[in-house]
Amino acid sequence: MSKRDFIAMEDFDPIAIDDILALATRIKQGEINGGLERKVLAMVFMDPSLRTRSSFEAAMFLHGGHAIVLEPGKGSWTLETTLGAVMDGAGVEHIVDAARVLGRYADAVAVRTFPKGKDWSVEREDRTIRTFAAHCEKPIINLESTRRHPCQGLADALTLEEKLGDARGKRFALTWAWHPKALPTAVPASAAIAAAHLGMNVVIARPEGYDLDPEDLSIIRRQAERQGGSVHLVDNMDEALDGADAVYAKSWGALPLFGQLEAEQQHRSTLRHWKLTSPALARTNKGAGIVMHCLPVRRNVEVDDDVLDGPHSVVVDQAENRLHVQRALLLEMIGKTR
Amino acid sequence: MSKRDFIAMEDFDPIAIDDILALATRIKQGEINGGLERKVLAMVFMDPSLRTRSSFEAAMFLHGGHAIVLEPGKGSWTLETTLGAVMDGAGVEHIVDAARVLGRYADAVAVRTFPKGKDWSVEREDRTIRTFAAHCEKPIINLESTRRHPCQGLADALTLEEKLGDARGKRFALTWAWHPKALPTAVPASAAIAAAHLGMNVVIARPEGYDLDPEDLSIIRRQAERQGGSVHLVDNMDEALDGADAVYAKSWGALPLFGQLEAEQQHRSTLRHWKLTSPALARTNKGAGIVMHCLPVRRNVEVDDDVLDGPHSVVVDQAENRLHVQRALLLEMIGKTR
Amino acid sequence: MSKRDFIAMEDFDPIAIDDILALATRIKQGEINGGLERKVLAMVFMDPSLRTRSSFEAAMFLHGGHAIVLEPGKGSWTLETTLGAVMDGAGVEHIVDAARVLGRYADAVAVRTFPKGKDWSVEREDRTIRTFAAHCEKPIINLESTRRHPCQGLADALTLEEKLGDARGKRFALTWAWHPKALPTAVPASAAIAAAHLGMNVVIARPEGYDLDPEDLSIIRRQAERQGGSVHLVDNMDEALDGADAVYAKSWGALPLFGQLEAEQQHRSTLRHWKLTSPALARTNKGAGIVMHCLPVRRNVEVDDDVLDGPHSVVVDQAENRLHVQRALLLEMIGKTR
Repeated sequence: MSKRDFIAMEDFDPIAIDDILALATRIKQGEINGGLERKVLAMVFMDPSLRTRSSFEAAMFLHGGHAIVLEPGKGSWTLETTLGAVMDGAGVEHIVDAARVLGRYADAVAVRTFPKGKDWSVEREDRTIRTFAAHCEKPIINLESTRRHPCQGLADALTLEEKLGDARGKRFALTWAWHPKALPTAVPASAAIAAAHLGMNVVIARPEGYDLDPEDLSIIRRQAERQGGSVHLVDNMDEALDGADAVYAKSWGALPLFGQLEAEQQHRSTLRHWKLTSPALARTNKGAGIVMHCLPVRRNVEVDDDVLDGPHSVVVDQAENRLHVQRALLLEMIGKTR
Repeated sequence: MSKRDFIAMEDFDPIAIDDILALATRIKQGEINGGLERKVLAMVFMDPSLRTRSSFEAAMFLHGGHAIVLEPGKGSWTLETTLGAVMDGAGVEHIVDAARVLGRYADAVAVRTFPKGKDWSVEREDRTIRTFAAHCEKPIINLESTRRHPCQGLADALTLEEKLGDARGKRFALTWAWHPKALPTAVPASAAIAAAHLGMNVVIARPEGYDLDPEDLSIIRRQAERQGGSVHLVDNMDEALDGADAVYAKSWGALPLFGQLEAEQQHRSTLRHWKLTSPALARTNKGAGIVMHCLPVRRNVEVDDDVLDGPHSVVVDQAENRLHVQRALLLEMIGKTR
Repeated sequence: MSKRDFIAMEDFDPIAIDDILALATRIKQGEINGGLERKVLAMVFMDPSLRTRSSFEAAMFLHGGHAIVLEPGKGSWTLETTLGAVMDGAGVEHIVDAARVLGRYADAVAVRTFPKGKDWSVEREDRTIRTFAAHCEKPIINLESTRRHPCQGLADALTLEEKLGDARGKRFALTWAWHPKALPTAVPASAAIAAAHLGMNVVIARPEGYDLDPEDLSIIRRQAERQGGSVHLVDNMDEALDGADAVYAKSWGALPLFGQLEAEQQHRSTLRHWKLTSPALARTNKGAGIVMHCLPVRRNVEVDDDVLDGPHSVVVDQAENRLHVQRALLLEMIGKTR
């Protein structure tokens, strides 16, 4: 019998995802108590967090469990991630050992690890979380890795269901936005997979050079086709927004220039107009397309204040839904009644 | 119906403050259990803490709840605090969004934010915590802001009541002390407000240039007058200590030189003799005035070892009382029986 | 009636240690629940931790209690450790005050403090944790100090008992290993004391200049003699490993060069062959001596991958046993049924 990790939404059967979303809805209505008594979640944050940390810590507590927060390189040891490394440098503990040990203390281990390297062909293998999963005897939960942020994807799906009702066939516009930094692609890939899971017509707008990883595009397409939706790529924001029922604004870095920070910054220097504004939002379906973002958002850079604070913004509901989907996920993965 | 924040002691009705102090006394005697089951407190520390963090975390736990600790700029995202900012710099998340999101995860949100700026006319508006309060749908608790440290004030009041009995008309000497750094005025203002709340005769000793903010002095005076006490300012420590029933030693920076670190340091360079010593303490009422400090204290700089470790020191009781008043405050603000 | 601290294993009666180990075994079998309801452990980490923090936090939670984590110099104030210091420098709070205050909030206070100084004759007095213990009214638990890591020692003892059955008279080889840094001697001293407590024949292999502190050697010898074991020192790894039932690989710095980082590094530059390899392990009893390490381990530097990942490695069991012995220790020290 093998353990079940939650590293990417597409690793789970669509029915299992729907079950989690249905349970999250019941949890949000206050119907579910307990189920995680004497359960421990160890969370390893190799990168910062506000929502993820708070919502998981609250989720465990609200059902009787406890979340431990570890920050390698800060309060905890710096982790070495390369298998077979001769560890005479800065890494004090190997993730293999951290994974094994935490698997003895906790009922599940959750890991956040952003890309750090220079080479996308290496980074795209998502080795850190995969190595953690391979060496930990308990289930692994992805708190955002190089390739995926599946808990955000679950929250996005729940928010779309709540706001749009049956989302099938509705138009989901994922649009690139300018940002001072080259961000990871985990969130846009996961958001598109979530919308595809709901059978939406996914339109992705991005400037030249900002395509998602081809494998991610294939997964989004496959998911959309199976669920009755579609995927289209366009090269300007307005075209994506026309008639959209939901707009997901998000920045990410150019994968062909991955790890080349200056070249990437130069490449994007002419793209500051990729910002979600009120006039752009007016192009959506009846001008009332919902506005989504995973947060943290660069206000007046990715999205204007009046859009974020306007009547169509659901970004805070999205963040709240992190709590509910994670409570459902934890109950499904390590709860007592499963 | 509006939520009730706890940003400054004077925001609450004096009767409500007395109720919290009375409840704290019963809690200290072990009479109160539970009341915070399934309640979550999110604590946002923009600055370091030992007592505040430990005592709030213990307070929540002892009544069945849970406190989450977030450290923006360390484990959590760096926060932007300016409304309307074009966020293309170092701030990753706006406090508006952090406030809204945490309000969805927690039953109350507590914030520590020390002054950082150059201009007191701006800093004195205490914008960070006020903005947090304006955008969070749950009650805000002040863990020390630019202007106030009201939980310390509650602990100071409880300690004065415990040690002096009916404190009305007794002499409370707040005296400036030298310190290597220009510290905030939140603690001395809050301590004086607490003593004024108890109807004490408040004497504030400070060197030239070290007056508290005029608005704070007005609030202290108004509070004292309403409660039957008084306020006097003197310019040397000895005069304040003469006959005092309680001595509160504390350093703070010169507001006219706020943000001018070198000029302020120069200005204070001749003031190292402002230190609470045994001979100075002998001037108090029967030489037995109680010695108070909020901690952390610079030993042998603000206060001498023999005073801090002597029979009249109540600084550890003051720190202990943080726990009891905060348990009472939390029960009043988010408890199940209120 | 004086409080009982746990700073070193040899401070406790051997029978008390055996009671803790026996209770840990019952806990590991799932026989013991509760006992720490409404109990608070304050943990002060002056240095990083993964196992210690996670396992204590889990231990408190699993029995109904709560652990608070403080990190002086990071989220908490930088601590001054010198008694009588005129605190006009970097130290913001004195450990005397931190110890007193935390003793008011918590039922026990646990402290991690690695050596930092230049002079072993000073450091060997283990002043930080001793000062903490002297000024805290609640029991102190050592999370690794300059001289001892007694919780690791307890876990080592439990692991030896589990894997070797009656360990009396069996051969315990503690061998020095090369490491890029001059590490503390707390772990090797504590491991040898643990093996001596079990009545094992302890053999310590170390290069010239790497003797443990003479007082530690005396304590190990005394413990071994009382329990029916023995202690021998040898100057090469192979000799220690010959016929060993357990091999404990560990690096530590040369005490005669304590605090002289460059000289120490130079001294050890010819010692990289002190590494635990498969051929070396083959010299143990039937080639099946168990392999121990406290973790974190520098893979392929202190110990080779194939040894750590091989069938004789018990390093993860050792780490797991931290949890069980600490649950037992906490129940004994602050539990409700003691």
